[in-house]
Parts: sequence; structure tokens; C-alpha cells
Amino acid sequence: MLNSIKESPLYPIVNPKSIAFFGASNNFSSMGTSQFNSLRDLGFEGTIYPVHPKEEKVQNLKAYRSVLDLPEVPDLAVLVVPTKIVSKLLEECGEKGIKHAIIVSGGFKEVGAEGGDREQELTAIATKYGIRFLGPNCIGVANPYHKLNTTFLRYLGDPGFIGMASQSGSFVTQMFNYLSRYSLGFSTAFSVGNEANFDIVDCLEYLGACPNTKVIALYIEGIRRGREFMEMARSIIPYKPIVALYIGGSETGRQAGFSHTGALAGPDQLYDGMFHQSGVIRAYSIGELFDMCWVLGRLPKPRGSRVVIQTHSGGPGAAAADSCGREGLELPALSQDTVKKLAPLVPNTGSIHNPVDITFTKNPIDYFSDIPKILLEEDNTDILLVYFLVPSQMVNRALERMGLSKDQVIEKSAKFIDAQCKSIARLIETYNKPIVGFTFRSIQEDFTKSLINQGVPVFEGPERAVRALKASVKYSRLSEKVLINTGKG
Amino acid sequence: MLNSIKESPLYPIVNPKSIAFFGASNNFSSMGTSQFNSLRDLGFEGTIYPVHPKEEKVQNLKAYRSVLDLPEVPDLAVLVVPTKIVSKLLEECGEKGIKHAIIVSGGFKEVGAEGGDREQELTAIATKYGIRFLGPNCIGVANPYHKLNTTFLRYLGDPGFIGMASQSGSFVTQMFNYLSRYSLGFSTAFSVGNEANFDIVDCLEYLGACPNTKVIALYIEGIRRGREFMEMARSIIPYKPIVALYIGGSETGRQAGFSHTGALAGPDQLYDGMFHQSGVIRAYSIGELFDMCWVLGRLPKPRGSRVVIQTHSGGPGAAAADSCGREGLELPALSQDTVKKLAPLVPNTGSIHNPVDITFTKNPIDYFSDIPKILLEEDNTDILLVYFLVPSQMVNRALERMGLSKDQVIEKSAKFIDAQCKSIARLIETYNKPIVGFTFRSIQEDFTKSLINQGVPVFEGPERAVRALKASVKYSRLSEKVLINTGKG
Repeated sequence: MLNSIKESPLYPIVNPKSIAFFGASNNFSSMGTSQFNSLRDLGFEGTIYPVHPKEEKVQNLKAYRSVLDLPEVPDLAVLVVPTKIVSKLLEECGEKGIKHAIIVSGGFKEVGAEGGDREQELTAIATKYGIRFLGPNCIGVANPYHKLNTTFLRYLGDPGFIGMASQSGSFVTQMFNYLSRYSLGFSTAFSVGNEANFDIVDCLEYLGACPNTKVIALYIEGIRRGREFMEMARSIIPYKPIVALYIGGSETGRQAGFSHTGALAGPDQLYDGMFHQSGVIRAYSIGELFDMCWVLGRLPKPRGSRVVIQTHSGGPGAAAADSCGREGLELPALSQDTVKKLAPLVPNTGSIHNPVDITFTKNPIDYFSDIPKILLEEDNTDILLVYFLVPSQMVNRALERMGLSKDQVIEKSAKFIDAQCKSIARLIETYNKPIVGFTFRSIQEDFTKSLINQGVPVFEGPERAVRALKASVKYSRLSEKVLINTGKG
Repeated sequence: MLNSIKESPLYPIVNPKSIAFFGASNNFSSMGTSQFNSLRDLGFEGTIYPVHPKEEKVQNLKAYRSVLDLPEVPDLAVLVVPTKIVSKLLEECGEKGIKHAIIVSGGFKEVGAEGGDREQELTAIATKYGIRFLGPNCIGVANPYHKLNTTFLRYLGDPGFIGMASQSGSFVTQMFNYLSRYSLGFSTAFSVGNEANFDIVDCLEYLGACPNTKVIALYIEGIRRGREFMEMARSIIPYKPIVALYIGGSETGRQAGFSHTGALAGPDQLYDGMFHQSGVIRAYSIGELFDMCWVLGRLPKPRGSRVVIQTHSGGPGAAAADSCGREGLELPALSQDTVKKLAPLVPNTGSIHNPVDITFTKNPIDYFSDIPKILLEEDNTDILLVYFLVPSQMVNRALERMGLSKDQVIEKSAKFIDAQCKSIARLIETYNKPIVGFTFRSIQEDFTKSLINQGVPVFEGPERAVRALKASVKYSRLSEKVLINTGKG
């Protein structure tokens, strides 16, 4: 593992001070223009040099006819141009002395033999000039900490803690919106494309050393350097978790993966074994990939797999218990001491056994403070899983019928929500145990949004919550084992 | 199967003209008051008689000291009162001549032996007076077509086509919000509680005959009348699909289920076999249950399991193909004719094979009209699965930079969205083949919302879409077989 990201040859790719941009124009609908605009929208603080064969200005920035005309040698070249002129332009970048490039353009190995030849030509040019490049056939990178986003969609939300390397550009750029809805974000994300020069192992190395990255997410259709991948992963696991979505396990997926990036996807078991041996946690969908990252990056490591469920209705409690059972998480019995403490807080139509069902008939404040406290103090539990029936409708209705004005209702309700969410979120630190919620309401609602912003992951349905927790339990065991084996514990 | 819902003894429970309501008061936070308010909020058009021992008026309606004082014999009594007075009040209902009741109150069999005795007492009273009742320990019913909602949350959205019978009240009332977010709704929903008198089989019978119900959803923790359940299901399947979520398969889930409604949950395989033999499609989560209902109730039956995927980026296409492979749906090769028709519409960096990846470089209009048309005309395909990268951000950005005012952007963009969504939705009818979408954006966004409102189900991620489609393929095969066997084809 690297000691610093500055040792990585990818460093200038995601931390450039100056960029030569090929393919932006004054045509609003072109891909290149979109990517150029994303870069500027995020407020990139370095210098951007648009290179355009005809225009004087591109989107109000002075344009250059050729990269050779630039007043300095930029750190990075980004190419979003027609296939047939990519090598010529890369050659010119080489002549100029540029050492790093992102080649977004497609039409290479992924389209067959002829494209393969074109890709070899690129590689030869790169070798000749000592250029390292990402792509071709990629969407570029995002490093929101550096205000860098070369993809064609705006970066939304704040910089985050998920480091991503993806063999699909969509799963970088199209996730900005997705992640921001969960108050998540990328630390740095790479779309690796055809991996003609840099590959996913290089990205893994970078992300392993990246101080903003708490958890690494991978989207994989096929790995070329299997042994290097495993060694790299193993060296990172003691410090941060790696989660991977591998597509290509089924025959239909395999075929789609092949035409997508030209990688030869291998059989499912092979990858499963490879992940298992190197400590990479496997996800089975994009949703699950980021669910796992959420819990792994946001919450303390659970000490074990014993879950206590807190609910205020039976069905969701039973569904959560069922999910735990299916995923191999335990539902321990609560100690006599805990049962005694719970008894006065839970009505007799509820349940003081695990799942603890407090129903609706007592003080809702207990739900966010006293009861979770008791459950976290219990020695038999490692994780608290809470069903949130966001009660704002009932709160609002009660306030309305008490004769409060609309504004007063909004204000009172917001205060109530804020206080409750803070109260439960604080317990994560106090007890150093993960708290995860689930709901059937929209995660865009005030209550859920507030919980999420305070640091409590809330999932749509118990299954997603439990599968994410399972990843956390896995990593906890894994890192312990690794730490012991390597003497790092 | 019944010929009409009027033959069902449940008919007055969900279609009452008058209701005696026990447990509403002028205390805003009580459960009874919440349920009473839900009933009135939906605009129930019959007569409501609040019964209260002390109050003159309950929420501005004249209250009665005793049910015996009512000026008529109401069709239905709803009881949300402390456990210890339930039998006394039920007895009085009997004396008054009331023949139908919903007993919301808990504290019966679900709390153990003593509660079991109390439940037997209820049953005895019911027998004595010829009362049929739902519950105890339930949340009541919703029949939005009749403007009836006895649960404690407001009914949201329009009446829908999903008939539900649930052994958890949460999965009735707490789903109003959930379903409305997908433009779905209940036709009629029953929370069956402890099933001391009416049980889930009775509800199934009602929903089988209910003309507003296109698909039946069940939440099951344990079935008491197994043989009757299977016979009833078998008689309904030729006419409408039944989807069931069974919780209790895992040991932890089983225990939670037991304390919840007092039902003895059986082993997973037993239920699996029972569902399989009676043609009930099994779901594994609440989300999946309603996903399946959505596709089953909204779209035409697929003629087979051959899926064609339309995407505009490789990763989501590959992920969708992988999902299809895992669920046993086929991805057929497209005919020469189709490939020829697609070629001019898809750039050479895309793919004209299945998944069809049109990338970003051509006219977006093709995406919603010409290309899906070609794919639906193809004889080799039964289902069209589309990845929607809702392009509103790019559309808006292009419009903004063209110098349009904010209002103009909103208007132009809305028009564009509307036209595209209508265009693709229309194809479902034209070709009588299901079209299902998936996205990683919020289903609350204008574009997705519009697609959904026009009748195209759009799921968060390909896995959910494919699993819902799988249910549809299953039902298609099942109903064919049943129709042939019973000579109904």
C-alpha cells in the first residue's frame, strides 16, 4: 500500500492544477460541452484550456487551435472527441509534454477487432511519450474535494467518504444524484473504461491511500490482473473495507459485460473465490453496494452479530427479525435487568422481548432516547435496528387540532423532529455501537432526512438495512482476523 | 369463488352504511381518536355514531352514552377501547342487534394464556348474538371506493387495484403513503389481527370476488386453515393473481411472528409448497410484494419470458442483463430485420444487440418512440425493459444556456417530459406487451412520476424490475395452465 496518494501515478489525474480540454464547443447538446460544463459548474479552481480547431472562444473561455499553442504544459488532457482523431490529438499532447490524460472517446476495443487495433495505437503513443491515461471509453473522474468533475452530469451534494472505481461510467456520474439523496458522496471516483493503460488495480491502490476515502466501492465486469488485484485488496483491508459489485456471473450478464468494455468476464465462482480470499465484500446490486458503503463508512464496527430490534408495530418487527434470520444475524434474548428496565416503558399490548415492540400507546419521546439507551446498554447486543414510523403526520394532526396556525405547526414540528433525531444519533457515539433504521416512508421526508443528516442510516425496508449490517459484521470479523494475522492488532 | 362480494359475510365490514364507533374522544393523541379522524378525513358518507361514556360530543359529533341509545341498529361497530371493557361492549352491541364488528383493541391471545381466555369470551359472545367480527388486535380496514378507512393514518392517493389481507396492521395503514408514492392504492385492505372470527381465508374469498381488485396481496405469519386457503386460492388464480409475503421462515422471524399475533408459524418449506401447489406467487419483502402487484395489476400478461433491454449506458444495461440471467428470464438475440432497422438510430459506439445501448449521441426522441417500437415489433421479444436516465437535468441545462427564462425552461421541459412519457406508455397498448423501466433517480422526480402516472412502472434499480417481471411471467404461465386444466381457456 502507498503511504501517500502523491506516490500514485493517478495523482495528477484527479488532482490536476491545469487541464487541456478537447471536445467542448459552443454546441450545447454535445457530450464534450456537457462534461466541460460540469467541470466549470463545480468551480474547478485550476486553469482550463479549451482546445478547439475553429472557435475563438468556448463557453466564454479563450480557446486554442492546438494543444501546442498552450502557454504552459497542463497537468492533464481530457479528450472527448470523435474516435478517428483521438490518436492524432494524443500524439500532440505527447509532443507538448503532457504526461496524463483521460480519454473519454469510445470506439476502441469495445467495438471489436478494428477498435482493438486503434487502442493498441493509443498505447503505443502513450509509451512513446511516457503518457499515463485513463480510458478510452470512460466517463472520467470526480474528486469533489478538488472541485474536479469531468463527467457529463453535475456533481450534487457534498464531498463524501466513498472511493469508487468503476468499469461503468454510469455508476460514477449517474450516482451523484443517487448518493446525494442519502447524504452520501464520493471522495474520489474513477470510471476506468477499457483500461488500456490505468486499470482498476491502480485505482484501488490510489483509493487505499486516499485520506478522504473511508470505504471503497468497485463495479467490476472483469479483472485482468487478478493476482495484483488480490494482493492490493489484501493490503488495504486492514485499513478500510472494500465492497464490490461483480456483474457477469450469469450468462446473460456476461455477454452484456463483454460488449460493454471488451473485458472477458469470468465465471461467478471464480470471482466469488477471489473476493473471499482477498477480503472483498460482495454486493449483488448497485443499491446494495452503496447501502453497504453507507453503514461501513458511517458507523462504528459492530463487536458481534447480535441485533436488537426496536419497533412500534408487530409486522415490521417480524419482517426485520426474519431478515436477520435469513442473513445469519442473531436476535439475542435480553437480560433480566434489561427486561426490568423496559417494563415500565412498554404497554402490556407490546413486547419487551426482542423484537421490542413498544406499540403506540406510550410517550413517543421514550422511543428516541430512553428505550434505545436501555437496549444499547444491554451487554447481549451489538447492533440496534430501529423501525421508524415517522410520526410527523400524527404530530402535525395533533398540533393542527390543538388550534395552532400552519406556521406554528411547521415550527413546532421541525423542532420536535430535530430534537428526536439528535437524541438518537448521539447514542451511536455514546455507546460505540451501530444504530441503523428502516422505514416504508420516503427517505426524502423531513424526519428521515434529519435522521440521515445526523448520521443514522435509514433504509427503505428491513432487508436492505440487514444486508448492509451483515457487510459491517463481516468486515468487523475480517479486520480483526487480518489485524491479528499481520500483527497490526 | 363467490359470484358477488355481497355474498361475503365481510361485505358489511367494508361497505357499512352506518358505524358505531367506540373509543374516539376529544383527546387528540389517543389511538381511537386518530382512527375516528381518519374515517372522517376520507369523507365517509354514511352515519357515524360515537359512543362515549362521558362526553356530550366527540369531535363535534353528537355522542351516545351507550350503544343501546342509538336511534338505529348500525351495520358495523368499531371498538378501540381498553382490553378489559371489550367483551362488555361487544355484549351490548349484540343486545342492540349489531351483527358486524371490528375489534381493534389488543391484549388477547397475542399476550399469552390469560389473553387467550379473554379471546374465547369474545368468541362466545359473538356466537351468542350471531356477530361476525374482524380482530381483535387489528388495525381495521380500508375501502377507499367506499370512502372507508378505520385505521389510524390518513388514506392517501386514489383508490387502487390492490386487494390486501394482512396479519399485520402496519402493512395496511403504513402502506398508504408507500403506495401513493408509486401511484398505487388499495381496492380494499383488511388487517385481520388475531383472526378469532374472520380469518385471512375469508378475506381472500372477498377479494377474489371484489371487482375493484385486480391483484391480491397477502402478508402472512401463519395460516390456520391450510386446506381451505389452498382451495380458495386455486379458485381465484384463473381470474386474478395472488402474491404472498410469508414471514416466519427463519427461526428468528418465526419467534417474532408468534408474539405478534399468536399464530403458530410453520416451517418455510411447508408454506413454500402450499403456495406453489395453489398458484400463489411468493414475495420475499414488502417492497417486492407491491412491486409484483404493480406489474401484475398494471400491465398486460407477457406471452413469454424473453426480455429485450433498452439502455443508454453500458453499466445499467449489463446490470439488467445480469438480473435477468439470475431470475431465469431470457435475453433473446434480435432478428436480422430488427438489427437492420436499429442500425441507423444507434451510433457505432453503442450496441444494436440485446441489451440495445443507444448511448447519448443521437436524438433523444428516438429513445421514447422509434426504438421501443422496433423492439416491441420484434417477434423474439415478450417484454421491454428500459433504463431511464431521466434527462431533465441535461434538457434544462441546454434550455438555460439557450437563454430561456426560468419560467420558459420549466414550461418547455414539462411539455417535453409529458410528450415523451405519453409516447412510450401508448406503446404498451399498441403492442400488448409489458414495458417496465428502472432508474437510479428518485421516483419522485417529474420525469419518473410522469412515466408512472402514464402507466409505465419504473423501479429503483434493475433487480426490482426484473423480480417483478418474473412474477408476471410466472402468473402468465400459471393462468394458462389453470385455464387449460379447468377448460376456461
